[in-house]
Amino acid sequence: NHSVPIAARVTVSKDESRDFMAVFPDLVRDLTTVTKSYNCNDAAKWLAKVLQYNVPRGKKNRGILTVLTYKNLIPPENLTPENIKLAQYLGWCVEMLQSFFLIADDVMDNSTTRRGQPCWHKVEGVGLTAINDALMIENAMYSILKKHFSNLDCYVALMELFHEITYITTCGQSLDQLNSNRSVSEFTMENYKAIVDNKTAYYSFYLPFALAMHLAGYKDAEAFRQSKTILLEMGHFFQVQDDFLDCFGNPEITGKVGTDIQDNKCSWLAVVAMQRANAEQKQIMIDCYGTEDLQKVERVKELYKELSLPSTYATFEEESYNMIKTHIQQTSRGVPHQTFLQILNKIYQRDA
Amino acid sequence: NHSVPIAARVTVSKDESRDFMAVFPDLVRDLTTVTKSYNCNDAAKWLAKVLQYNVPRGKKNRGILTVLTYKNLIPPENLTPENIKLAQYLGWCVEMLQSFFLIADDVMDNSTTRRGQPCWHKVEGVGLTAINDALMIENAMYSILKKHFSNLDCYVALMELFHEITYITTCGQSLDQLNSNRSVSEFTMENYKAIVDNKTAYYSFYLPFALAMHLAGYKDAEAFRQSKTILLEMGHFFQVQDDFLDCFGNPEITGKVGTDIQDNKCSWLAVVAMQRANAEQKQIMIDCYGTEDLQKVERVKELYKELSLPSTYATFEEESYNMIKTHIQQTSRGVPHQTFLQILNKIYQRDA
Ligand SMILES: [Mg+2]
Ligand SMILES: [Mg+2]
Ligand SMILES: [Mg+2]
Ligand SMILES: [Mg+2]
Ligand SMILES: [Mg+2]
Ligand SMILES: [Mg+2]
Repeated sequence: NHSVPIAARVTVSKDESRDFMAVFPDLVRDLTTVTKSYNCNDAAKWLAKVLQYNVPRGKKNRGILTVLTYKNLIPPENLTPENIKLAQYLGWCVEMLQSFFLIADDVMDNSTTRRGQPCWHKVEGVGLTAINDALMIENAMYSILKKHFSNLDCYVALMELFHEITYITTCGQSLDQLNSNRSVSEFTMENYKAIVDNKTAYYSFYLPFALAMHLAGYKDAEAFRQSKTILLEMGHFFQVQDDFLDCFGNPEITGKVGTDIQDNKCSWLAVVAMQRANAEQKQIMIDCYGTEDLQKVERVKELYKELSLPSTYATFEEESYNMIKTHIQQTSRGVPHQTFLQILNKIYQRDA
Repeated sequence: NHSVPIAARVTVSKDESRDFMAVFPDLVRDLTTVTKSYNCNDAAKWLAKVLQYNVPRGKKNRGILTVLTYKNLIPPENLTPENIKLAQYLGWCVEMLQSFFLIADDVMDNSTTRRGQPCWHKVEGVGLTAINDALMIENAMYSILKKHFSNLDCYVALMELFHEITYITTCGQSLDQLNSNRSVSEFTMENYKAIVDNKTAYYSFYLPFALAMHLAGYKDAEAFRQSKTILLEMGHFFQVQDDFLDCFGNPEITGKVGTDIQDNKCSWLAVVAMQRANAEQKQIMIDCYGTEDLQKVERVKELYKELSLPSTYATFEEESYNMIKTHIQQTSRGVPHQTFLQILNKIYQRDA
C-alpha cells in the first residue's frame, strides 16, 4: 500500500518476545517478595494470580517497544545483558500500567471479554475486587522502579514520567466518559484529538519511547519535545486506524467485531461524517448513532460509504504517513531517525 | 478514664482547621491549571467538582496531623509562612490519598453514604466513573508534589513514601477482602493485625508523621523506624477502639450504627470472642455471625457481654496506652516525645 522500503518493515521478532517474557517470572518474584515483607502472604499469593492473568497475555507491543527503542538509542558497547534487563523491566512497568488501565476500564465499561478471555472482574470470585487488584498493579510497579532503578540518575525522571502519563490517561478517560454522554451532533475534531492523545497516545507511544530515552541517558528537553510531537502523531494515526478498522476491518483478521457505532463512541468516522454531512444526513446520524438497533447501525455504515469515508481514510493515511516522516527528518537532537521509522512502518502496515 | 495530664489533651483547634481549609482553593487551582495544560478543559471542570465533593468534607484529621507534627518537629525560627504552607500542601496530599481510597472502597463495598452525604458513586450521573475519578485524585496528587516539592532534598523520599504506603494499603484491602469470605472460625489475631496495620495504620498514622519528618529534614533511618513502631501501635489501638465502638458505642455520639457483625468483619471483638469461647459458644458465633438477622446479631452482642469483652477491652485500652507511652519514652533519635504524646492523648480520649 505505501512506498515503505521493505527493509524497514521491522516487526517484533519471536526472539524479542521470548526474551521479554523470560523476565516476567523475575518480576513476579520481586513483587511477591515485597508483598510478603509487609506480612501479607495471602495478598502476595493473590497478586501473583492477578499478575499472571492480566499482565502477560496481550501482544506486549508497548513493553517490547520500550526494549527495542532502548537498543536503538544506546551505543553498541553499552548493550550489556544488565542494561538490556533494565530495559525489559521498564517494558514490564509499561505493561503493568496498561493492565491497570485495562482492568479498571473493563469494570467501568462493564465489558465481558479482553484478549480472548473473560475480563478479570468477570472471573468467578473476583467481581469489584478487580478495582483493588488494578491499584495493586499500579503501585507495585513503583516498587519495581525503586528496586532496580533508584541507584540511577534517571530515577526521578522515570517516576515523574509515570506519574504524568498516568494522570494524563485518567484525564483522557474522563473526557471520553463526558463525551460518551453527548449527542453525535456535538462531536468535534478538537475533542476527538484531545481524547485520543490523552487516553491512548501518551501511554502507548510516548511513554515507552521516553522511558527508553531516559534509560539511555538522554537529558535534552528539546529532544523529548521533538520525540513527543512525532509519537503523539503516530498515536493519533494509530487510533484513527483503529476506529476505521472497527467499522471496515475484516473481523477474521482483526479478531473482533466492532461496536463503536452502538456505543456512541466519538470515533474518527463519526466526527468526519458529521463534518461532511448535509442537514438530511446529519439527521440520519442523530437518529441512528448510538443505538443497538442493527438496521440503524447498518444505515450509519451506508452513510459512511455515501460520504466516501473509506477513500477519505486512505488519503488521511497517506498524508499522515508523509507528515510524520517529514517530522522525523526534521528532528535534530540526536535521536536516530531509524528509531522512529521502525515504529512508523510497524503501525502503517497493520490490518489488525 | 486515663491518668492523662489535662494539659496534654490537645485537640485540633478551630484555627488549625480553618487555616488548613484556607489552602484548599489553591490546591484546586493548581490542579485545574495542570489539567488544562493537557487540553482537557472539560476534565478540569469535572475534577474541580470531584475534589470539592470528596476531599474536604471529612474531619481532615490526617491532613491536620501532618501540619501539627511538622510544627512540633522544626525549630521555631524555621516556622515561616512558606514552610507552614508546604506542610499544609503535604497534609492535603494525604487527604487526597484518603479520598482516593474511600471512593474506591465505597464502590467495592457498594456503600451508600459517607460523611453524611451519598457516596460519590451514588451521586446522579457518576456511577462507575467514580473509579476513574479516584484515579485522577491519586495521580493529581503527584503533580502537587512535583510543583511544590521537587526543588527540595526530601522530594524522592516523599514520592517513595506515597508509593509504598499506597501499595501497603492496597495489600491491606486485599487481605480484608480475602478474609471477608472466610468463616468466623478462621479469624485469627495474626490476620487481624496484618489487616489493620496495612489497611489503616500505615496511611492514617505513619504516613502523616513520616511526611512531616521528611519535610522537617529528618534523614536518620532509625528515627523513622522508631516512629513507625509507635505510630503503627497507635493505629492498631485506634482500629480496636473503632471495632469496639461499632458494637458498644453510643450511636448518638459516634454518629453511625455499626454493622460489623452483619458484614462478617474480622473485627477485634470477633477475634477475641473466638479465642475465649468454649465449643458451644463458638457454635453460636458460627451460626449467628455475618447474617442480617437482627436476632442473631443481638445473640452475638449478648455473647460478647457473656465473655466480658467490654472489660477485656478496658484492660486492653489501659495496657496499650501504657505500652505506647513506654515506647515513646524509649525513643532516642531526636523526635520530641511531646510530638507523639499529643497524638496518643488525642486518640485515647475519643468516644466517636
Ligand atoms: Mg473499554
Ligand atoms: Mg472506557
Ligand atoms: Mg477501537
Ligand atoms: Mg468500606
Ligand atoms: Mg472495604
Ligand atoms: Mg469500623
